[in-house]
Amino acid sequence: MTMTSPDAAATEAHEAARLLERARSAVDPRLRDTVESLPGTMRRVAMYHFGWEHADGTPAVGSAGKAIRPALVLAAARALGGDPQHAVRAAAAVELAHNFTLLHDDVIDEDPTRRHRPTAWTVFGTPDAIVAGDAMLALALRLLAEDRHPAAAAASARLAACVIELCAGQQADCAFERRGPREVSLDECLAMATAKTGALLGCACALGALYAGAGEEEIAAMDAFGREAGLAFQLIDDLIGIWGDPDRTGKPAGADLAAHKKSLPVVAALSSGTEAGAELAELYTGPMDAGAVARAADAVERAGGRDWAQLQAADRMARAVQQLSLAAPDLRAAGDLLSLAEFVTRRSR
Amino acid sequence: MTMTSPDAAATEAHEAARLLERARSAVDPRLRDTVESLPGTMRRVAMYHFGWEHADGTPAVGSAGKAIRPALVLAAARALGGDPQHAVRAAAAVELAHNFTLLHDDVIDEDPTRRHRPTAWTVFGTPDAIVAGDAMLALALRLLAEDRHPAAAAASARLAACVIELCAGQQADCAFERRGPREVSLDECLAMATAKTGALLGCACALGALYAGAGEEEIAAMDAFGREAGLAFQLIDDLIGIWGDPDRTGKPAGADLAAHKKSLPVVAALSSGTEAGAELAELYTGPMDAGAVARAADAVERAGGRDWAQLQAADRMARAVQQLSLAAPDLRAAGDLLSLAEFVTRRSR
Repeated sequence: MTMTSPDAAATEAHEAARLLERARSAVDPRLRDTVESLPGTMRRVAMYHFGWEHADGTPAVGSAGKAIRPALVLAAARALGGDPQHAVRAAAAVELAHNFTLLHDDVIDEDPTRRHRPTAWTVFGTPDAIVAGDAMLALALRLLAEDRHPAAAAASARLAACVIELCAGQQADCAFERRGPREVSLDECLAMATAKTGALLGCACALGALYAGAGEEEIAAMDAFGREAGLAFQLIDDLIGIWGDPDRTGKPAGADLAAHKKSLPVVAALSSGTEAGAELAELYTGPMDAGAVARAADAVERAGGRDWAQLQAADRMARAVQQLSLAAPDLRAAGDLLSLAEFVTRRSR
Repeated sequence: MTMTSPDAAATEAHEAARLLERARSAVDPRLRDTVESLPGTMRRVAMYHFGWEHADGTPAVGSAGKAIRPALVLAAARALGGDPQHAVRAAAAVELAHNFTLLHDDVIDEDPTRRHRPTAWTVFGTPDAIVAGDAMLALALRLLAEDRHPAAAAASARLAACVIELCAGQQADCAFERRGPREVSLDECLAMATAKTGALLGCACALGALYAGAGEEEIAAMDAFGREAGLAFQLIDDLIGIWGDPDRTGKPAGADLAAHKKSLPVVAALSSGTEAGAELAELYTGPMDAGAVARAADAVERAGGRDWAQLQAADRMARAVQQLSLAAPDLRAAGDLLSLAEFVTRRSR
């Protein structure tokens, strides 16, 4: 990770917030028009999911999420000399694809809350949440198929391939939850996180590059930048899932441990071959009260899981910056992308 | 419906079987390659769903369905002077999109059997069936996005729009099942059947036209041909769901009535304003033993539901032929499409 003083970090966070807000304003009209084009109940489910309507269909001043992926599309286009305005449709498509995965993941994982509200399936039922998710995926690819930009076909193929990877990541994640504490290898876990989180951040950056008319190598480097930053983000998110801080994230410290989640620091600890790793495996076979959660967090730390995740996150960010310098040799032009990457790896969802 | 002697009908059925077999051979290699490209468990779910593998992953000599939609794509391309070989990818995409809907519909409707085998979700669980369906939809649109044919982008946009319509149809179908027997109007029911069954048959024909380089009007007429034929098909299918014949369909006569299904002849009867319609509504509020099923079938008939559905089916087929003559004024060139339309409206799924 680049070294920044607290002041510089605050400035950067402010800069990232500005970029996210700008992306939200640029993309929301298109996104909303598209979602509003859905017929009947699917429209209502989608409007609710995005936080634009309450469950009863009345307007809400909600949050549709932080627009990280659309911001990456626009910033990547800008970094490679493209006009971000031309990539707004692609940015909306990426955001739709992301929200399709959220809708279906919530059904599959039976998650009751999303963005501090009841999840769509708890409000509208599983069938309506599934078909609304399906329609959102079709909408995402339709937006690109109807785009006259010369990069649209390649962007569409790339987003479709990415969705398949996201599905594989979600499938692996579910399969891991069914396995025993020592039956998931760290490599499998990293591959899962790359597919589930890295792939779409990479795709967002690659689409920006495509819309800027970049060449194959720059596109590949942009994809790799997003993937590495995405993995760093996941590692930090997993650390927060164990050690907090709940004030900023809304998650209680230790939530992932209480749920026996096989997050990256946990799997690193479990596969460390240490005594602390064995203790953790033992703890993961029984129910977790507050005492057990505290002992598990301690075991992850003693087994080296915390240090490993922190080093990995720093290493992934270094690789991300390296890839970015290949895509955009003038790093000043890529300043927005760096700000966004720093932002996502500094805090949680 | 065109009038044909029993002999001519047999010849036509034979002709349709030949067309379907030819479409299956032309499309299967591409379809299978594409499905085999899926990662891990999603590949297994999809291979099982298509009947190419048993649940344990060993090869099966199964039936992947009747290939009606791919056959329509290829026949429509041929009818408008295109080379069906160029439309094989589009035909595979349509078949993937169709199978995506089957996978998700089976999850949503909790159907235990499909093509005489346990449904994928009963074998692999709901989460894996959902993500495999998602991936299949992404694969369908990826196939078109990666196609270099000049019609590919328009085809992709059309298929994505059609998927949204299919989702709306499935959503409406589920919503109808939750409503009371007299709370669904015939217009709503026709609109639902058009979205759920007609839209993809229409899209298949439209894609064939697109790949033949046809103009807007021919494409629209081809779409309308497929939609009308699809609705005729649904009406006949609904009649079979009440009056059999189970030898040919595998469904017991009256199955739809026993399940309180709001099929087209039933809704026609319910909304007929007749005494028999009121009897049917009464029967639909309670459990259905064999006696009740027989009385319900009789009530549908006395209320005019059977005659209405038969007339509607004939009328829809006449409209289909009318549309086909607009798209391909030389009906000899469109012979294959007519054979396929006659075939789907003569028998059940």
